[in-house]
Amino acid sequence: MIEAFQNINKAFESKVRLGIMAVLMVNDEADFNSLKELLSLTDGNLASHTRALEELGYIVCRKAFVGRKTKTTFQATPQGREAFKAHIDALESFLKST
Amino acid sequence: MIEAFQNINKAFESKVRLGIMAVLMVNDEADFNSLKELLSLTDGNLASHTRALEELGYIVCRKAFVGRKTKTTFQATPQGREAFKAHIDALESFLKST
Repeated sequence: MIEAFQNINKAFESKVRLGIMAVLMVNDEADFNSLKELLSLTDGNLASHTRALEELGYIVCRKAFVGRKTKTTFQATPQGREAFKAHIDALESFLKST
Repeated sequence: MIEAFQNINKAFESKVRLGIMAVLMVNDEADFNSLKELLSLTDGNLASHTRALEELGYIVCRKAFVGRKTKTTFQATPQGREAFKAHIDALESFLKST
């Protein structure tokens, strides 16, 4: 149990970050509003977690103009995909051991 | 994915709380120092999470004198066991769906 526990990545422990990464693992990209609705989050809550994941190099953020509005789109980086897979493996081993 | 995601219990999302509950699910009780060493935590970190779990009614804390020292022991409550099981189920469903 302890080894799996140590391998759980604190960067992904929050439910919101698990949700963001899960969406970005199965979709090439997702925009801010889709993520917000899908995960039932507030703007502030989503923004603070995407910023943190971006600073860790796990996702990238792209802003584009759609008419007069900006559209923010996120993608998981190869590094983010690898780290998330390792986290899921650790979580699964931990759960199996409990 | 979304239903399983919504059922993830935020009270258990932190790695430390997962660890504490996992230990208390398989052991009738655990004392402060054993938990601290087992999970490689500092006093403050462990204390803040055990306090939070206690306030939620998920664990109980018992203090006793052993010689001149106090010994703090924790136990999961029936409510805590049930909530943790539901959390693990949600986490497993979520992981399966990713």
